Amino acid sequence: AQTTRIAVTPGDGIGPEVVGEAIRCLETLRTKHNLALEWTHFPWPSHAWHQEHGESMPEDALAQLKAYDAILLGALGDPGPLDDPNRYLLTDSVSLAPLLDMRKGFDQWVCERPARLLPGARQYLADERAKDIDMLVIRENSEGEYVSQGGRLRKGTEDEVATQMEVFTRKATNRIIRYGFEQARARATERANEGRTRKFRKLDGSTCESQVCVITKRNALRYWGDMYTEAFEEISQEFPDVATHHELVDAACMKFVQSPWAFDVVVASNLQGDILTDLAAVLSGGMGVAPSCNLNPTDPNMPSMFEPTHGSAPDIAGQGLADPTAMLFTAARMLEWFGRKDPVMAAAGKELFDAVAADLAENSGARRGTQDIGEAICARLSA
Amino acid sequence: AQTTRIAVTPGDGIGPEVVGEAIRCLETLRTKHNLALEWTHFPWPSHAWHQEHGESMPEDALAQLKAYDAILLGALGDPGPLDDPNRYLLTDSVSLAPLLDMRKGFDQWVCERPARLLPGARQYLADERAKDIDMLVIRENSEGEYVSQGGRLRKGTEDEVATQMEVFTRKATNRIIRYGFEQARARATERANEGRTRKFRKLDGSTCESQVCVITKRNALRYWGDMYTEAFEEISQEFPDVATHHELVDAACMKFVQSPWAFDVVVASNLQGDILTDLAAVLSGGMGVAPSCNLNPTDPNMPSMFEPTHGSAPDIAGQGLADPTAMLFTAARMLEWFGRKDPVMAAAGKELFDAVAADLAENSGARRGTQDIGEAICARLSA
Ligand SMILES: CC(C)[C@H](C(=O)O)[C@@H](O)C(=O)O
Ligand SMILES: CC(C)[C@H](C(=O)O)[C@@H](O)C(=O)O
Repeated sequence: AQTTRIAVTPGDGIGPEVVGEAIRCLETLRTKHNLALEWTHFPWPSHAWHQEHGESMPEDALAQLKAYDAILLGALGDPGPLDDPNRYLLTDSVSLAPLLDMRKGFDQWVCERPARLLPGARQYLADERAKDIDMLVIRENSEGEYVSQGGRLRKGTEDEVATQMEVFTRKATNRIIRYGFEQARARATERANEGRTRKFRKLDGSTCESQVCVITKRNALRYWGDMYTEAFEEISQEFPDVATHHELVDAACMKFVQSPWAFDVVVASNLQGDILTDLAAVLSGGMGVAPSCNLNPTDPNMPSMFEPTHGSAPDIAGQGLADPTAMLFTAARMLEWFGRKDPVMAAAGKELFDAVAADLAENSGARRGTQDIGEAICARLSA
Repeated sequence: AQTTRIAVTPGDGIGPEVVGEAIRCLETLRTKHNLALEWTHFPWPSHAWHQEHGESMPEDALAQLKAYDAILLGALGDPGPLDDPNRYLLTDSVSLAPLLDMRKGFDQWVCERPARLLPGARQYLADERAKDIDMLVIRENSEGEYVSQGGRLRKGTEDEVATQMEVFTRKATNRIIRYGFEQARARATERANEGRTRKFRKLDGSTCESQVCVITKRNALRYWGDMYTEAFEEISQEFPDVATHHELVDAACMKFVQSPWAFDVVVASNLQGDILTDLAAVLSGGMGVAPSCNLNPTDPNMPSMFEPTHGSAPDIAGQGLADPTAMLFTAARMLEWFGRKDPVMAAAGKELFDAVAADLAENSGARRGTQDIGEAICARLSA
């Protein structure tokens, strides 16, 4: 079998620490199952690299990374000295740019963010049904609000006009919506295999095993809102076994709080998906457990990128305090991604997920260091 | 004194029912305090008017409404027959248009949505500190994502491109940010008068009685994000007594769930404000209690518009089941708005607010009809 190659980019802040535990677990699984996996560490993108070279990563960074099957990223962003009032400005505009560069450069047009409230994870909602939260938010990751078109006319004056263009294509809309329906189907199959079922109602009153909810703000952002609605309507015909639903983004935020357990697959635009995935993450335990997968499911020559949703947490960096749980769930997702064509890899991904979930369930709220958690999970994997 | 004139537009669904109770309470207060208030009912904007005339309101609607000091709106949107799968399409694009027309036509550039979790209101968050939620979300209501510029190229084909332009001016940015700071100051004064205090930390470590948090997505939507940041920085210099804070919209959604009690005044763009106000509404008790005030604080010739945040709830319309609480809080806000220059009106607004809040606290969860609630509150006002 061909070796699967991972580019490991630990990044800034707590990134290197949590990535260290991910590698520890991957090494354990590699040895145990003789996985054809190898990895290479990169010192960029990072703040340190930026300070030395004036840019977050080398000019040929994407060309170098393209040789890998996946990128496992820690966290980006070092806001600089604590007493600098503008400290977050640099993080926002410079340090995080490589994230967007990779998504764009490798056409990682899907961002998948699963949100399940696992036992042991922090529960913010009062309602006990929060335990049933199990949704997959699929964010369009290649266009829309994130095309960076626009500018500032008469910059800095009283008469300034700033514009920002949102550009949506039917092609990218179709592919993300179709991907959403496919994932809904796959989730229904997975549930059936595990003996679980969920019921969703179709408009005609019949029930389905899965649902796709598409998000827009079509009552105010008409042009792409209408296009999304039409594409959704059209593609849903190919999936008569999947229930459909449409929510406006503002109402969706409200329903995420009121009844998040009612959602299955949610498809949203780049910005609306960004907002909804952060909300879904907090409702399912917070940043400490949330993985983010930037995928290119169509071009096998393009690496996908896996990162925890959390940031670089510079305030606790270097102290061995960071919780690597989200990073480990992210690594599990990566193995599952490799597992699409390789059952051994898929099983390893599931094994890692189960070990991290079991560790979370047993140690809820315990004060443990980064390494303690990584070692505990490795011990579980070796047992 | 001059009479203050209200245009009452009950709208669709439960709108007429809840507006009926608002008028009942306003009438009680008018008689009790001899308030110089009068109102006129309009049959539009509404779905019924649309069915008869092919448009939601007459062509000269804005000209007619302009003669009033305020518009008290019930709810808009009738999605049509329950078995029509496209029933919500009409609501979205047609029935709700008058809302945006009024905001634009009367340059109601501020949308104020207070979010306090009052005793008796539904609490979605597990954390007891949710009881301390007391924020004011101020939404820029005149431009930004809502300018309706854009279009659909090659509409309906595989090659379609839909664009939507966001347009932000420095002038509107400055005025909404300055308004935010002024409200923060006013809230601090009000708290001081009531013997309450809150503490917010400034970047230099000192503490303040109030805070403004500005929201952007400047790491992805750079152009207006940078302009907002600069405007915020500049205007904050005029308010050294107010602490400042900046959140990205995705992080803000997360923090609204994690620690909403930490926010005071929040200033956001039109779309981001739309999303955050729905989230703030649900966290402070839900749609059943949330008022929305569309204000023009600068031009006394332009009416402001007051509406509950909730929709027309066609499924329970006409049955006397709708809860008028949000509508009554909205009416209280309207009186307080009139009260800016008239202490009697301000006192009446406070009286109505207190009566509705007391009713909510005493009857939490009780099953009561629309009229029962209105009558109970009127009884309180008359007592
Ligand atoms: C860092 C930022 C540009 C990024 C985004 O908006 O996509 C982040 O919020 C995320 O969700 O991955
Ligand atoms: C009905 C709709 C256009 C409106 C908006 O987006 O402003 C509503 O959601 C609101 O918040 O008042």
